[in-house]
Parts: sequence; C-alpha cells; structure tokens
Amino acid sequence: MTVMDKPATSRETVEEIEQLFDRLWPLPRSITGEGARRTHSILGELVPLQRMEIPSGSPAFDWTVPKEWVVREAYVLAPDRRRILDFAESNLRLVGYSVPFRGRLSREALDAHLHSRPDLPEAIPYVTSYYAPRWGFCLSERERASLAPGEYEVVVDTELVDGALTLSEAVLPGNESDEVLISTYTCHPSLANNELSGPIAAAFLYRRLAAWPERRLTYRFVFAPETIGALSYLALREEHLRKHVVAGYVITCVGLPTRFTYKRSREGNTLADRAAMHVLRHFGTDYELRDFTPTGSDERQYCSPGFNLPVGSLMRGVYGEYPEYHTSLDNKALINFAALQGSIDAYEAVCRVLDRNLAFRNLLPFGEPQLGRRGLYPTLGIANQSERVAPMMWLLNLSDGRHDLLAIAERSGLAVEHLWQAAKAAEDKGVVTRCRVDQAEIPGRL
Amino acid sequence: MTVMDKPATSRETVEEIEQLFDRLWPLPRSITGEGARRTHSILGELVPLQRMEIPSGSPAFDWTVPKEWVVREAYVLAPDRRRILDFAESNLRLVGYSVPFRGRLSREALDAHLHSRPDLPEAIPYVTSYYAPRWGFCLSERERASLAPGEYEVVVDTELVDGALTLSEAVLPGNESDEVLISTYTCHPSLANNELSGPIAAAFLYRRLAAWPERRLTYRFVFAPETIGALSYLALREEHLRKHVVAGYVITCVGLPTRFTYKRSREGNTLADRAAMHVLRHFGTDYELRDFTPTGSDERQYCSPGFNLPVGSLMRGVYGEYPEYHTSLDNKALINFAALQGSIDAYEAVCRVLDRNLAFRNLLPFGEPQLGRRGLYPTLGIANQSERVAPMMWLLNLSDGRHDLLAIAERSGLAVEHLWQAAKAAEDKGVVTRCRVDQAEIPGRL
Amino acid sequence: MTVMDKPATSRETVEEIEQLFDRLWPLPRSITGEGARRTHSILGELVPLQRMEIPSGSPAFDWTVPKEWVVREAYVLAPDRRRILDFAESNLRLVGYSVPFRGRLSREALDAHLHSRPDLPEAIPYVTSYYAPRWGFCLSERERASLAPGEYEVVVDTELVDGALTLSEAVLPGNESDEVLISTYTCHPSLANNELSGPIAAAFLYRRLAAWPERRLTYRFVFAPETIGALSYLALREEHLRKHVVAGYVITCVGLPTRFTYKRSREGNTLADRAAMHVLRHFGTDYELRDFTPTGSDERQYCSPGFNLPVGSLMRGVYGEYPEYHTSLDNKALINFAALQGSIDAYEAVCRVLDRNLAFRNLLPFGEPQLGRRGLYPTLGIANQSERVAPMMWLLNLSDGRHDLLAIAERSGLAVEHLWQAAKAAEDKGVVTRCRVDQAEIPGRL
Repeated sequence: MTVMDKPATSRETVEEIEQLFDRLWPLPRSITGEGARRTHSILGELVPLQRMEIPSGSPAFDWTVPKEWVVREAYVLAPDRRRILDFAESNLRLVGYSVPFRGRLSREALDAHLHSRPDLPEAIPYVTSYYAPRWGFCLSERERASLAPGEYEVVVDTELVDGALTLSEAVLPGNESDEVLISTYTCHPSLANNELSGPIAAAFLYRRLAAWPERRLTYRFVFAPETIGALSYLALREEHLRKHVVAGYVITCVGLPTRFTYKRSREGNTLADRAAMHVLRHFGTDYELRDFTPTGSDERQYCSPGFNLPVGSLMRGVYGEYPEYHTSLDNKALINFAALQGSIDAYEAVCRVLDRNLAFRNLLPFGEPQLGRRGLYPTLGIANQSERVAPMMWLLNLSDGRHDLLAIAERSGLAVEHLWQAAKAAEDKGVVTRCRVDQAEIPGRL
Repeated sequence: MTVMDKPATSRETVEEIEQLFDRLWPLPRSITGEGARRTHSILGELVPLQRMEIPSGSPAFDWTVPKEWVVREAYVLAPDRRRILDFAESNLRLVGYSVPFRGRLSREALDAHLHSRPDLPEAIPYVTSYYAPRWGFCLSERERASLAPGEYEVVVDTELVDGALTLSEAVLPGNESDEVLISTYTCHPSLANNELSGPIAAAFLYRRLAAWPERRLTYRFVFAPETIGALSYLALREEHLRKHVVAGYVITCVGLPTRFTYKRSREGNTLADRAAMHVLRHFGTDYELRDFTPTGSDERQYCSPGFNLPVGSLMRGVYGEYPEYHTSLDNKALINFAALQGSIDAYEAVCRVLDRNLAFRNLLPFGEPQLGRRGLYPTLGIANQSERVAPMMWLLNLSDGRHDLLAIAERSGLAVEHLWQAAKAAEDKGVVTRCRVDQAEIPGRL
Repeated sequence: MTVMDKPATSRETVEEIEQLFDRLWPLPRSITGEGARRTHSILGELVPLQRMEIPSGSPAFDWTVPKEWVVREAYVLAPDRRRILDFAESNLRLVGYSVPFRGRLSREALDAHLHSRPDLPEAIPYVTSYYAPRWGFCLSERERASLAPGEYEVVVDTELVDGALTLSEAVLPGNESDEVLISTYTCHPSLANNELSGPIAAAFLYRRLAAWPERRLTYRFVFAPETIGALSYLALREEHLRKHVVAGYVITCVGLPTRFTYKRSREGNTLADRAAMHVLRHFGTDYELRDFTPTGSDERQYCSPGFNLPVGSLMRGVYGEYPEYHTSLDNKALINFAALQGSIDAYEAVCRVLDRNLAFRNLLPFGEPQLGRRGLYPTLGIANQSERVAPMMWLLNLSDGRHDLLAIAERSGLAVEHLWQAAKAAEDKGVVTRCRVDQAEIPGRL
C-alpha cells in the first residue's frame, strides 16, 4: 500500500490557504527586487526552496536580466497639496519599472503619464514598462476625471541598480529520474487570481507530494518571475529539463470558482496533456479543453520551438478572459479559496496519474491467462460480471508493449487508478511485468 | 456469371432453421460431455464436420482441458419428498460442472448452494463453476421463496472423468489460401439466443457458401466450447491461422429482432471490420458500430495480444444487454427465426464482399482511358449520366495499387458489388489487371 | 510594398465581363473547328495566348485527336416546307459532331434522331457524339410534340476533315519556377455557366495577376477543349507539369449567384486544397467543401492516377446540379455577372494566398525573442494585447521548419495575409529567415 491509498492527511485547510494569501498580498512584487525576495522567503516556509539570484546583465537566450528596480517612494501632490496616487497605499499605483522623476507638471502634461481603463471606471489597471524607460501612475477612470486643473508635483523616487533577479526551485526526488515540472510566477504586485493563486497552489501541492510515502517520478517546482524568470531558469537548467521533463504545467489563474480550463502543450497530445485530460474526464466537474496558443503565460517559453517541452496549463479563470484581469479588481474578494483548494486537488490528481502511469507487458499473451486459479477472476460463472473484471481484461489485452496505463484508460474509458490496481494484482501473480513504452508509439491516443 | 448473380437456391427455409433449433434445444450441453457431442452430431448433418476430441489434461496455452463432466441425475427432495430442481426437467437446474454430492441438509444449509436472480423473479439463472469444485442448483427467486423449512435431500450424481473436449471444424476451400474464419460456440445448455442462434447460423451459412459455384477465399468454420474450446483450437491451428486468416467473425447472439451490432476487432479497422461495416452501410437496416472490448465471447481469445487476429462479431441482441441473457427466459419464445435468417443473410453478404474484394491496377492510368470505343462508356454525350458511369470512373481513378475494391467503396460510397462488376468489364477489355494491395497501405480507410 | 497592398486597379468592370460574354456567346464551339478558333482569338485580346494546333490523328495517351468538324449548314424542312431545327438559329440544334446526311424521312423515322428532355419541356438539350458516327437534332419536348406527321427533309451538311484541335496556353512568370495551373475549357457551344463563365473568369484572372508588380510563383493558364484538349495538353507538357505544378484549379461553372463549392483534389489536402479552403474560410460567404470524385470536368484527367496532380475546382453552380445544365436554359439570363466577378475575386485571393505562402525558420527559437527592443512588440505592458501580437507570436512559435504560413494559419485561425505581414516585419529584423518546408511533413493539416 502506498500513500495514495491513504486519506490525504497532508491536505492543507482552506484557512491555511487564506492566511498565506493575506501574507503575500501586500508585498510590492516586480520581476526583481525586495518584494519578490520577501515573497520567496514566505513561500520558503512551506517549501525548502533553493534560492537563486541571477545578476543584472546576465544573458538568457535573446534576453538580458534587467537592473533591479528599487522603489523608495512614489506619489503625486495635487494642486491642493493632497498626496494622491501613492505607491505606499497600493503597489499598483506606480507603473512597474518606472524610472526616477521629480518635477512639477500641469494637469495636461501629467495626463500623458497616467493610465486608466475607460471600460472599467472603478479599476486601477496594472501597467509595466520593464524594458523601455518611462514613468507613470495608474488610477481609476473616475479618479482621473476628478483631477483638478493646476500644477501637480510628481515624486518617483526609484532607482535601477545592478542587483539580481530572484528565482527558486525545489526538487522532490522520486524513484525515477523522469521529472514533472511545476512552474509558477512571482512577479505581479497585488493581484489575486493572476498572481497569488499560482504560487500558493504550487506551494501546497509541493507539501502534499512531499507527504506521499513514495514517489515514482521526480517533481521539480520553479517559482520565478514571468518570461525573464522562466527564460533565466531555462538558461540554467536547459540540458537537464530537455532530458528529464516528461510532463509539466504552468500553474496560474487557479482561484476562481469557474469550470476548469486545460490548455494543451504545443504538441497537443503529450503525456502532460493526456494526464490532465484524464483527470478532468474523471473528476466529475465541468471543464473545457483548449489547443495550445503562443500567447499566455510561461508555456510560451517552455513550448517555444527550440525547447518544445511537454508543458500545459490547468486553469480556473483564464488570464485575459475575466473582466477584473490585470486591475485592482483582481483582489481577494474575487478569490474562492475552496475553488483554489479544488485546483490543488486537481493538480495532485494529475500528479498521481502521472506517477501511476506505468506500462506492463502481458507475459501470457496467447489467449487469456486462466485468471480464476490465480484468484484474479470469479470462479463462479454468472451473468453480468464483465464490469467487475473489465480493468483486468483491458490491462491484459492492451499490455502489449505499445500501451501505457493512460493509453489503456483512454481506450477503455476506465480510470488509471483502477487499471493500476489490476496491474499490481496481476504483477503479484507474475502475469504481467513492467516495461517501457515509447510515448510516440502509443496508438489511438485521444 | 458466378453463383453470386443467381438466386440463392441454397437458402434454407425459416422452418428448417426452427426444426434445427428444436432438435438442439434439449441437449444438456456443457464445455465437455455427451450433450456437446450430440450437438456436434446433429450439426454434422448439415456440415461435414471434422470432429476433434481433445483429451482431458491437454494444455492450451495457460489452460488445461478439464475432465469431462458426466451427469447421471441431479435433483433435490423437498421435506415433503417432492422431487424438485430436477436436471431431467431442465438442464439449467444444475450448476455446470457440479461435483458429486449426496446428503441431507436443512433449508438454511441448502440455501448456500442455490442460485436465483432477485432482479428477475421468474427466471432460472445459468450458472457454472468449471474450474472450482462446487455443487449447486438454480431456481427462480419465486421458487426459492416458496421452499418450506425442513430437511432436504440432495442428489448430485455426477462424475468428473478423464475424457475429452469436443470440437469440430469444416473447411470450404477456395481458389486462394487466404481464409475467413467463422467461429461459434457449443457449450451452453438450453439457451436460445446466447447459444443456439450461433451454431445454427454458422451451419446454414456453411451450406450457403458450399453452394457457391466458385469461392475465391477459403472459409474455415469452427464449432467449439467457448474459451477453453477456442483456446484448444488456437493451440491446434495457431500457425495456420496466423498465416492465413484475413478476416474472421465470432457468430453468437444473432436471433433477436433488434438492430445489428457490429463489434470491431482489436485493431479496429481490419479487413473483417471493413467488410462488415460495408455490408451494414448498404444493407438498409439500422445498425450500431462498437469498438472492440476485451470482454465478450471468443473474440477475447482470437484478439488477445499474442494472436491479435482480425476477428470481429456481427450480432443481433448482444450478450449481457438483454434482460433474459443467461437465464431460462433466453428461450425459443425470445427468438425471431426470420431475424435469425436475416443474420445469416448478413453474414453471407459479408462473405460475398470479402470474396469480391479484389484489387486492380489501372493499365491506362494517364488520364481516363477512352472507354467509349471499348463499349464501357456511353458514346452519346448527354447530361446526368455520371451516376451510371460512377463505378467505372471510381474503379479507374483509384486502381493505383493502393486501393482494394473495399477501399474504393469506402471512398466513393458505392457498393463493392457494383465496383466488382465494373472491374470485371474493365478487366475483360484489358484496361485493368488484378494486383495485390498491402492492407496496411490502404489510405483513408474509415 | 508589393502590388497586393495596392488597390486592385487591374480589376475589370462588370460591364467588361458582360461584353466579353456577349461576343463569345454565339460562336459555334465544339472540341475542334472554327468556333473554337474564334473563341481563342477573342480571348487572345485579353491574354497573350500561345495558340497550339494539334493535328487530327495525334495521339494523346489512350486517345487520338479526332478529325475536325466542319458545319456548313444543318436544318430540317417540315412537311409544310418550313425550315426548322436550324443550326443557324442556335448552335445547340445539331448534335455535336453529326456526320453528313441528306434525305427524306417520315416523322417516325426522324424521331430516332431527335433529342429532347421530357423533364424540361421548354429546354433544348446539348448533345454530342464525338467518337461514334451519328447525326441528330435537338429540340424542346414541346417542339417535338408539335411536329406534324408527314415527310421531313433533313440537311446535315457537315464534314469531318483532317485538321486540328485548338488549344492555348499563357504563362505568367514569377520569381520561382513552382507553378499554379489554371485550366478551363472552350468546347461547348452556346452554354453560359457551363462554358463561358470558365474562360471568361480565367481571362480576367490572368489580367489581374499580370498586373501584380511581383509574383513569387509562376502562373500557367490553359484554354482547351474538355477531355481531349486537356489530355492533349498533358501529352505536350507532362514532364514539365509533374515537376513544377504545386497547385492547380479547373475553372468552370463560376457564374451563378449561389454559394461557393470547392471540390478537393484527389489527394484531398494538397496545397491547392489548403489555399482554396483558407480563402473560403476567411471570405465571409457561405461555402461547401467536397471530396474529389472522378466524375466532373478536367480534374478527371489531371487527377488520374498516372498524374495525380494537385488540381481542385472552386465553383459556383456545379455542373449537373442545376436544372438548366447542358440545355438551352443555361444562357445569359442565368448568369449573375457580379457573382461571376466574385468568383474571379475568390480565385485571385487563392492565388495571393499561394503566392504569400512562404515558410520561415525562427532564428531565435529558444524562448521568445525579445521583440520589444526590435519594435515588434508593445513596450508598455497592459492587459488584452494578445490579439494584436497574435500573428507575430504564432509565426515565431510555429516557424520550426515544419509549418508554412498556411499551416500556421490553419492551426491559429489567422489569415495568411496577417501572418505574412508579421513575417516580413520579423524578417526585416533578422528574427526569421525563409526556408523550404516539405509539404508532406506539415503536421495537423486540416
């Protein structure tokens, strides 16, 4: 018996999820800087993270790690000397990576540096300018309309310094060197679904998998800023990932109480896709499957043609598709913590399917083996027992060196879990033996 | 002109079918024994069967032929000394392969040896225990409820003796050594659809094919007990079957007046599947196609991974799916003999399609041949003659060494019969010549 | 900038189309003869045609070019000496290739030489007998019914002489030797949709493509009688066509105001098919896709198994499927000249897609290139810009040596035009470079 048969004593409570959320929420995250570092420190309380600091100027394929962004303070003094648009009040107020500025501007001149969303008059948008020097402030359309004429004093006390980009990894070793990659990002300031739901889910998923008494596969967790962080990590681990990753997922946007959306990897039917689709098919909730697109999150990097890794993304409330996306309205009120926990459940189920996706060879392939005398088949012949014996029969019929358990599950409609149980029983009796199956040779994959 | 163009003078009457049914019905069939032998003798009046007796203890892959089961008498004396559950009254009364027993038991102790079907209170279930020593009786739920308290006397005068398992084959030779396998079972006692419909259909199918004046293919008929009989036959003919069988069918459950169900072979698109699907598509009746499953009848053995023969099953009233299955209610009243004859018609049509599934090479493949001067195309150009010439045009366009007539039929929607007629005409004029097509290279198969 | 970005100043007016129709309408076309020659001369005013005269008796694969048909006059004198069924009145009156005859016949004897359409009592059918010597006249069912008893005098003053079959080609050279074949026929007498719409569309299409300032591909136009003309052309250009044609279309039946119908080439997913389907998908009008059939027009010859060229047909009012087909009712009143021009638009769009269907290799395939610093991506990060950048992202993700722009379009749902614009921008910045893609290796083609 392995841990997977035990009740999940390692399952976090919803309150633990919410507490972690509340601690991470106010930190002024960006692709570099202290906000990110403090985020990794807090996540490090749950996950034994290996922190890596990538120096500014380091190359990452076609990119260069930018300078580190330091924000001391940033605000505007209105004509009546009221302090408005204060970074200290909300870290969405300042355009990310704003360059230093101090000066007096008319209402009109200031306007060119302001960002709002006419379509969402109450929302403060999230805006960045990582690679082009700019400064700017974000505010709601309503606030913008209420700005009086007159002279404004702008204080952007920031600095771009030689520093580093922060990223972390944690590896849960398994019996085999094949790896499952779990990647999530830590670079947006106070955004809830499109930032915190990802690293929170990844951290608790780590804790659950760590509590499994046995792991066949190795699980690699990566926490890094989006794009430049994923690219920096790929630059560090390129050869290893190419060689070992058999499935991977970008965890992002998993906190809304909507149906699941699975976005396939670039090749569309990789092991990552097959495991996720299997879980969704058997999970009992509504879901949607999508083909890969080269827009989105870090699957863009993992699935770029030079790497083409088997990386998909199981989401719940997809980036760009809910109105609050990338605004101050993507906040705690939007999150359903039970749904977020359901996302962790789904990811754990996906990992369990991957872990149990063994392949076997039927050692008695000429006709059916006589299972009755091995205790693997009812000895009393009565009607309608085919459902009971179906997992064993499918296992034996398709364990021909071309089907892993997922492939048998796909063809039979059965759950990998039930096939795995049949396989263990048959293996105990010497009827099947483990083998390796070339993924590319699996016939009839869905 | 071949026989296929002639009226089917060899077609049996519905009365002949019913008479054969009535003779076979009462015989106490099991996987071995005199009931099976007498069944083969009666079938042997229609089909020149080669009888084979496989001695008890013979190996058949992972199995061993069991001892022969002899039933002298079996019944129970009720507390009032009435004889009940008498094997002489119905051969379903005794659990198949019951071991000898003689003794007195209380109503309660007897109960552990009784089998009924709470969901079908009027039905006596069919129960067997071939490979685990047991004895037992079958009765309706209603009968069970009416058993009085008191002492019962049980007589199971059976014996398991060194004997043999009976199976038979009959081979109708054709011009070619490629074979069509027709397999059916003869091991259930008085069951109608799920026993007798199969061997009866197979026997009359044999008689029809024997009356064809010409056969391109060789047709091999096997009558054997389910599972152990099919395995024993495979053990005997393994190499031959592997080498020669191009299509095969398990005939079972073909007597109900329901739509046809075709269960595909394991590979899903073998010649067997393509011929059966073609017939169903053109037969004008409702039908259903199903993927292979490793539960069912002897396709389980033929399609086990070690053999993986192209064997499907065309049924009408599928095992396990009609309520009377494996009970005393699967009796003559359930059978529609016209429907059973329709099943024989369908199987004959399938064999005809297989027999005519030739492949040709267009000898004039550069543009269309000028068919008009060969009498193969109308010389008067008028509108709307494309339907008339369609079989010839499809034949010529796709006779490229990659399409057999079935493949042309699948792509064009035409009947193999019409393509075959066009091919014969074109062959007569030297426009096409016969060739062989590798089944695996046929493109666009459905 | 190429011509494709310019307004189509070369687009003909609807009046020009109608004028060309009116000039071509009365000519007594057949597969040979002066009617065909005059047709080619008029078309030659728009297209610099290379005329070819193939002598009678020349072989064309399995066929022989027939003698040239000369019609001096043909009519019947009714018992009342009225001249009826006069070829001078309508060139549909005489069965095509009627052999000479002069004589007196009873009403009954004449009847065997008359052709009418009981299902279309007002229509004069179009009838030919190119390869079997016959004479005959065509008339409406109503006319036939009104023929009085008595003696008729028949004059068929025709001659079959050693002459030639007339066909023409015109080649618009491009930067590359890969060719697009445009084939249309010029052999039916006064028929509108099923004759004139084809060569008229082809001629104006030529004029449009000739006005493109740049052509990547070479465009080959063929005007020839159906069947024997296409075969004669194939006989002349066989090796060249095999080597160079990457896509081709038979233009016929493009003048009705119905939805578009695209008939695929024999292989079903050739470059010709992919380009036509792409245009239809993005054209905004209703359309229908059909699989290849070996009945129809000259795709029968181009797609015969010996050539198997990638030739489809985009139609509007398919031969054999509108009631007026091959009768006097297929006349000017049936044609919608705006629809005919829409067909030319569609064919030009297809050619543009083919011309722009380049393939590129991403030179920075490891992750995304940093597009912002190259001016290829917004430097300000705001929400919902993925649609704007989608063509660039798809281009980069799938430019892996296995996808041409059409394949990227098929997978992304984007237009080739937009991908081409992204590719040009990326090529300018050295991010991608042109490459060749083996059509057979394109994955996931629709």
